[in-house]
Amino acid sequence: MPAAGTADRTGPAELVAAARGGDARALARLISLVENASPQLREVMRLIAPHTGGGRVIGLTGAPGVGKSTITSALVGAYREQGQRVAVLAVDPTSPFSGGALLGDRVRMQNHAADAGVFIRSMATRGHLGGLSWAAPQALRVLDAAGFDIIMIETVGVGQAEVEVASLADSTLVIVAPGMGDSVQAAKAGILEIADIFVVNKNDRPGAQETIRDLRTMLAMAPPGADGWKPPIVAATAAAGEGIDDLVARLAAHAEWLGTSGERERRRLARAREEISAIAVAALRQRLSALPGQSQLELLAGLVARGELDPYTAADRLVGG
Amino acid sequence: MPAAGTADRTGPAELVAAARGGDARALARLISLVENASPQLREVMRLIAPHTGGGRVIGLTGAPGVGKSTITSALVGAYREQGQRVAVLAVDPTSPFSGGALLGDRVRMQNHAADAGVFIRSMATRGHLGGLSWAAPQALRVLDAAGFDIIMIETVGVGQAEVEVASLADSTLVIVAPGMGDSVQAAKAGILEIADIFVVNKNDRPGAQETIRDLRTMLAMAPPGADGWKPPIVAATAAAGEGIDDLVARLAAHAEWLGTSGERERRRLARAREEISAIAVAALRQRLSALPGQSQLELLAGLVARGELDPYTAADRLVGG
Repeated sequence: MPAAGTADRTGPAELVAAARGGDARALARLISLVENASPQLREVMRLIAPHTGGGRVIGLTGAPGVGKSTITSALVGAYREQGQRVAVLAVDPTSPFSGGALLGDRVRMQNHAADAGVFIRSMATRGHLGGLSWAAPQALRVLDAAGFDIIMIETVGVGQAEVEVASLADSTLVIVAPGMGDSVQAAKAGILEIADIFVVNKNDRPGAQETIRDLRTMLAMAPPGADGWKPPIVAATAAAGEGIDDLVARLAAHAEWLGTSGERERRRLARAREEISAIAVAALRQRLSALPGQSQLELLAGLVARGELDPYTAADRLVGG
Repeated sequence: MPAAGTADRTGPAELVAAARGGDARALARLISLVENASPQLREVMRLIAPHTGGGRVIGLTGAPGVGKSTITSALVGAYREQGQRVAVLAVDPTSPFSGGALLGDRVRMQNHAADAGVFIRSMATRGHLGGLSWAAPQALRVLDAAGFDIIMIETVGVGQAEVEVASLADSTLVIVAPGMGDSVQAAKAGILEIADIFVVNKNDRPGAQETIRDLRTMLAMAPPGADGWKPPIVAATAAAGEGIDDLVARLAAHAEWLGTSGERERRRLARAREEISAIAVAALRQRLSALPGQSQLELLAGLVARGELDPYTAADRLVGG
């Protein structure tokens, strides 16, 4: 298998060129470099910078069981019918206790597996040097430079990851399902802030109307957004293909609004700020942990552990605050 | 109400003195300072440093539904019978989607609510400046200085938080329940590393023996720990009080081993290192975000967003890497 042999020996420049030429294997290897926090990433990011900015990032969030993968798969189908190239990045920031669930869901994506215009990839960030905020934007950057028109980023519906993923997207879908009314109530403060579009999936189930009404009430009580966009509520039964056309139309309207309002540029600037900060913070963290054994940190830790120094003063001494 | 009026006007020194004197209200306010990342924390940490190191930290982790709160409540009862003062810190690093669940569980703790020797507190870390790794050790430090003999820290069973909480504890309990065999399988790599003691709760349910056997098999296949401790498996039905005496005995054995092996000191040194690093990293992060509008970060973000610069070079320019 010459392709495998070549890929194993290639450096960042060859991988980037191959990925930009449509080589899914090279692209997968670039994402692995992100996942493994490879030292080669710096060179990769330098090479791809001029090729970024063309892709549109759609974030999908929601509690487990609401049908995120089904919605994602339906959207992939719809965008492929439009002739667009689509990438799906499933981020798994889970603990040992729930690991694996996300990959299981990927089975629903199998009908797109043979389509060269679709790239699907899970990425683990557990135990990651810089965490999700470090890895996810760099993975999106790679997919963007590889020329995908639509890049969907999906995460399991737990943890701060939800909010972080929303901050990476041009458009964020918050997906809910009937019979989860309590969680909608518990959630209202958080999801109103991050949703550009609400999707009530499994609309054929009992309680769907109530869920939609609850969401409407929450939105009516929310202070109007300074940016002039009112999140619509789309009712869908994604497993039967229902509501997907409407969702695609709402996403198109949001994309247009992002452009005319200047919000796309604001969001992308904010994303770049976050990305630079996360890399800077990870670099400092690495510098701290790379210090040799009987280092200053070790000495300071001893003082703090014995109660002879407080951790703030210790941190000051470490980095010269 | 003079107490409330006094507490509202008191500074760090008065709050620390009151909390050390057993004033639960002052203690709660100190934890709130941590939760809110108050600037007063620095002074609080300086004041309490000489009073830390006496408490024993027990971490409890496990997936939702395994009965963490029931185990915690039973352990509180057992330690109170020994005359020990007990604090429980429930850390909630959840997203908007699952927020609230943890506080609901606290209802099971109500039978300890009137006991002056017990302090129970939930702490949210979502959206927190420095996240769990910044806030949790400082909250533990406050509880330690307030003179609690036993400090239990519990988190919801999702996300990297599990692993982080384990790194804060002297002894970590990993709780599982029958009928979650798949998650045990999926989890094996992660939970073997962090568990000092396994608890199979709901031992009266079908599948308990199978769960115990699965755990034994996993433990037998694991490479022996360099530190010479073999995690025991305790079968319990905490809701009926069964297995709690055994668990308390295993915890006592682990505490003794921590002392004789030198592992307690190693763990506390590691904890102090992490704590100092987290504060140093948060300080840098704050410095980055506190820069004024048209700052260097803003300029760099513009270059990165337009593809004229890669984020690594931008981070270097920002912090002088």
